[in-house]
Amino acid sequence: MALKLYGAALSPCTSRVMTCLHEKEADFELVPVDLFVGEHKQLPFLAKNPFGQIPVLDDGDLSLLESRAISEYVAEKFKETGNDLIRHQSFKEAAEVKVWMEVESQHYHPEISPIIFQFFAAPLQGKSPDQAIIDENAAKLGKVLDAYEDKLGRTKYLAGDFYSLADLFHLSFTYYFMKTPCADLINDRPHVKAWWEDISSRPAFQKVASAMNFGENGN
Amino acid sequence: MALKLYGAALSPCTSRVMTCLHEKEADFELVPVDLFVGEHKQLPFLAKNPFGQIPVLDDGDLSLLESRAISEYVAEKFKETGNDLIRHQSFKEAAEVKVWMEVESQHYHPEISPIIFQFFAAPLQGKSPDQAIIDENAAKLGKVLDAYEDKLGRTKYLAGDFYSLADLFHLSFTYYFMKTPCADLINDRPHVKAWWEDISSRPAFQKVASAMNFGENGN
Repeated sequence: MALKLYGAALSPCTSRVMTCLHEKEADFELVPVDLFVGEHKQLPFLAKNPFGQIPVLDDGDLSLLESRAISEYVAEKFKETGNDLIRHQSFKEAAEVKVWMEVESQHYHPEISPIIFQFFAAPLQGKSPDQAIIDENAAKLGKVLDAYEDKLGRTKYLAGDFYSLADLFHLSFTYYFMKTPCADLINDRPHVKAWWEDISSRPAFQKVASAMNFGENGN
Repeated sequence: MALKLYGAALSPCTSRVMTCLHEKEADFELVPVDLFVGEHKQLPFLAKNPFGQIPVLDDGDLSLLESRAISEYVAEKFKETGNDLIRHQSFKEAAEVKVWMEVESQHYHPEISPIIFQFFAAPLQGKSPDQAIIDENAAKLGKVLDAYEDKLGRTKYLAGDFYSLADLFHLSFTYYFMKTPCADLINDRPHVKAWWEDISSRPAFQKVASAMNFGENGN
């Protein structure tokens, strides 16, 4: 039975899991959740995820939430196929992957997501982007990217000289970020820029990115 | 060679890792980092963690940051001793542990940490707690705890009928939270309250909690 992913192609959290599924060459069915009518905030979806967020992955009788946890589950379930995203054969490398997955979650995401919200989600709610919020988070993100620039000057990818889930976790939010006037925060840092161009050109992400265009696709 | 944990006993992130180390009965040395003189924001500590945060764990030539990633590393390294915190013998249970670890990280922590900051850290900086920030985050935390109350009415612990890293991740921040006037958010929800009383009374956490008293201990 194929995996069922409840989500929306435009959602960067859904796209994170889809990118992982493509890397692992896993069969899955995307079951659309209509965010514009608030399907994720109503039953029956709330029974799947009490926090009212996409995506949710159903694998038989197992129902999982949280895009990072789902991606780890997929990377482990299919660890023998496609690219090894968790370095399961090296305890030390696997530890580095976990560290940089947490760095994305605790340092990168909290700064980049409000910027994306202001540029893409606020207008959908009839609001103008709040420049003060953008500036505050851009300044913080710049400091995080200084640490990335240093690390990526020493290793090709975040956790080492291998592509991993830690890099993958950055893709979908950064894809939207690169369409904003803040993109120079990436482009002005040569190692970060080269890393971004490398990871965003991977076929697994390209399949997902083609559907991540506000105004060009439905939900 | 014993593990070296760079941190501070008062820091809830250091305490998170120490609780995990005690659960796994692992030998370690706590190397104090003096937050009050800003040791974590200066070299040589910044060479260990470019984000300037404690804790850092050194295990031989491996140096790890991020308390949740370090805890996972410890739980896996010592998976055969002490309590099994990651359910490594059940793929499904391990997936549920990862999901609820992410729920703590993405839903619980972002709401509880600003409240703790206002009550404990702001006064150290000569500021009064900002009641508007407290109220806003308390309201959001209440909604998260509604989902916890529902889940803990169905399973004894967050990921299932077993204590895991997902529960452990909540301990040190909630310990400080319970010393604030917001504690009723826990006490008024019977399943959450029973869960809190259970997990906070575990010997591994009690060893750590005894040192987590602002004003009674040094750094």
